[in-house]
Amino acid sequence: MNRAHNFNPGPAALPLEVLQRVQAELLDFAGTGMSILEISHRSKDYEAVHNAAQQLLRELLGIPEQYHILFLGGGASLQFSMVPMNLLGPGVSADYIITGAWSQKAWKEAKLVGSPRIAATTEVDGKFTRIPKQEELDLDPNARFVHITSNNTIFGTQWHTFPHTGSVPIVADMSSDLLWRPFDIRPFGLIYGGAQKNLGPAGVTVVIIREDLLAASREDIPIILRYKTHAKENSLYNTPPVFAIYIVKLVLEWIKERGGLSWMEQENRAKAARIYGVIDAFPEFYRAPVEKDSRSFMNAVFRLPSEELEAKFLEEAKKRRFVGLKGHRSVGGMRVSMYNFVPRASIEELAVFMEDFAKKNA
Amino acid sequence: MNRAHNFNPGPAALPLEVLQRVQAELLDFAGTGMSILEISHRSKDYEAVHNAAQQLLRELLGIPEQYHILFLGGGASLQFSMVPMNLLGPGVSADYIITGAWSQKAWKEAKLVGSPRIAATTEVDGKFTRIPKQEELDLDPNARFVHITSNNTIFGTQWHTFPHTGSVPIVADMSSDLLWRPFDIRPFGLIYGGAQKNLGPAGVTVVIIREDLLAASREDIPIILRYKTHAKENSLYNTPPVFAIYIVKLVLEWIKERGGLSWMEQENRAKAARIYGVIDAFPEFYRAPVEKDSRSFMNAVFRLPSEELEAKFLEEAKKRRFVGLKGHRSVGGMRVSMYNFVPRASIEELAVFMEDFAKKNA
Repeated sequence: MNRAHNFNPGPAALPLEVLQRVQAELLDFAGTGMSILEISHRSKDYEAVHNAAQQLLRELLGIPEQYHILFLGGGASLQFSMVPMNLLGPGVSADYIITGAWSQKAWKEAKLVGSPRIAATTEVDGKFTRIPKQEELDLDPNARFVHITSNNTIFGTQWHTFPHTGSVPIVADMSSDLLWRPFDIRPFGLIYGGAQKNLGPAGVTVVIIREDLLAASREDIPIILRYKTHAKENSLYNTPPVFAIYIVKLVLEWIKERGGLSWMEQENRAKAARIYGVIDAFPEFYRAPVEKDSRSFMNAVFRLPSEELEAKFLEEAKKRRFVGLKGHRSVGGMRVSMYNFVPRASIEELAVFMEDFAKKNA
Repeated sequence: MNRAHNFNPGPAALPLEVLQRVQAELLDFAGTGMSILEISHRSKDYEAVHNAAQQLLRELLGIPEQYHILFLGGGASLQFSMVPMNLLGPGVSADYIITGAWSQKAWKEAKLVGSPRIAATTEVDGKFTRIPKQEELDLDPNARFVHITSNNTIFGTQWHTFPHTGSVPIVADMSSDLLWRPFDIRPFGLIYGGAQKNLGPAGVTVVIIREDLLAASREDIPIILRYKTHAKENSLYNTPPVFAIYIVKLVLEWIKERGGLSWMEQENRAKAARIYGVIDAFPEFYRAPVEKDSRSFMNAVFRLPSEELEAKFLEEAKKRRFVGLKGHRSVGGMRVSMYNFVPRASIEELAVFMEDFAKKNA
């Protein structure tokens, strides 16, 4: 098997062992004589998968009992809207911290259903190169929540220390860095994330919501869009994305077997250190726009001295089966996405290639 | 391989050849060196799948150009809400025809965002045993649309001739019978269906919307819930459920290779004729509540003379690896779901078993 080095920004690489397991049992799941794709979401066989996925997530992240874990369809983009629909209302405000395109999208949806404030933005001329400092945050103590995007895939920045918001709960879009390391969930009222970068395939969104926010969430919105509907029915109000949840479960088992999130963090830190190490060794050649202490451990973005060199870089990368290195169309340049399941060996090959390329073309 | 006879009400059986193909290429999709689960939804490889799935659906159903085909997440239950959110508004009414639990759910969501009317209901004491006749429909000529559920999985009824609604477009939930046969789409303004019964796995919902309804759809609702958003971006506004769409594409190819929807209809008619043939041969034993001309070709429901016999039936069925025959918890009894990909051989084995069981236990 000639496996590509997959640096896709999402959907992204999955553990080979998980894919092999899926392949092996694709025609006969757990001795049922049916594929996991063909079994009822009300069957005992599926319920075991569903509940195990929840339980593993709870265990790995250390999620206390007062948080509900939901598996929803529609993508994180649907959560941009469900969050304010459920939590805002007349006279209720929320603070949004804008650090890139995804937080802008979340804010745009919030404006359609409420009156959110911008508590901070690091935008300069349409670009974002850093996470704001605590003292820059103009926080409203009466806000219903403070919304952040924990990692910004397009601009390559990431919150390393979460903002202090007092008694106001944080709501975080963690689509691109959930599970990259352990963290203290207690300041968070709600966390959501599409699975397709750090915990599974496209098609399922994880929502972790604290009991107090759930209890206060609205009941005058469409039934299917209420968090209460899904919490009450354990995400089985309607047919869930069975296959995607099944893979999430296998992925979580894979992480646990290897040592859980402290192991995952070690791996991710080593990968990021290797790539940023090369970038910093050739600062005139690999031009990283992001301030060092805002650098993302998930997506390293950089430019080369010219667009010709960038094209040449991509061309030679392609020959080595490096996939997904082109930066987002809105910013150009390069992007190395090194989510949880990008192997260290792929990062090592890329780093060596980057060193050689810089030496030859500087 | 000891494959079960899968009569699950959904998620349901898929073609064995499709599952084998998915299995064979699970680690390396189209020579990319990556799984279909790992490739970017913006890649050429995925776009080819996405567009082929659309094109095949258009071809098989004979969908004219003025209809857009969307692939959305969130299930058909999200469409219960998106339909009225997009198409209703102040002073705009819609007619709902209630034929079972699913149309009731759709109507309930519509009431939350508009003022829908009930144009007909066949409910008697909480049960539904028939589709209404044309003369029973109290249709409002000024309605924005007439909503129907084309097949009722729980009560086992199905529209065989669609209602005449004049110039008012029909909006249909076809989650459980889309693709069971060819039909004239022109009276329909919008069709939606979760894939997990008749066209693929759980996780993707197909929406087919006519240009005039799309053009008139609302723009003051959340961006992610607007049909316009998804139509404009060819269902790539956000990450679509890649894997589910990939399987839909393979399933559509499978149908096409075998002769398209006229072949599919022949198969489905033969399967339903076989099962209802047994039921009608033992009318005192297999008690079918549904009026004959309302019988569903997808779900045959019946009761046995006693709950003891029903338990015995299920027990013996289980030994023969017949799966999913228990009726919905709200109605009890038996249900034979015989969607598109339930093989005729499975139906034949079940029919023979039913004959034997009736003879031995009558």
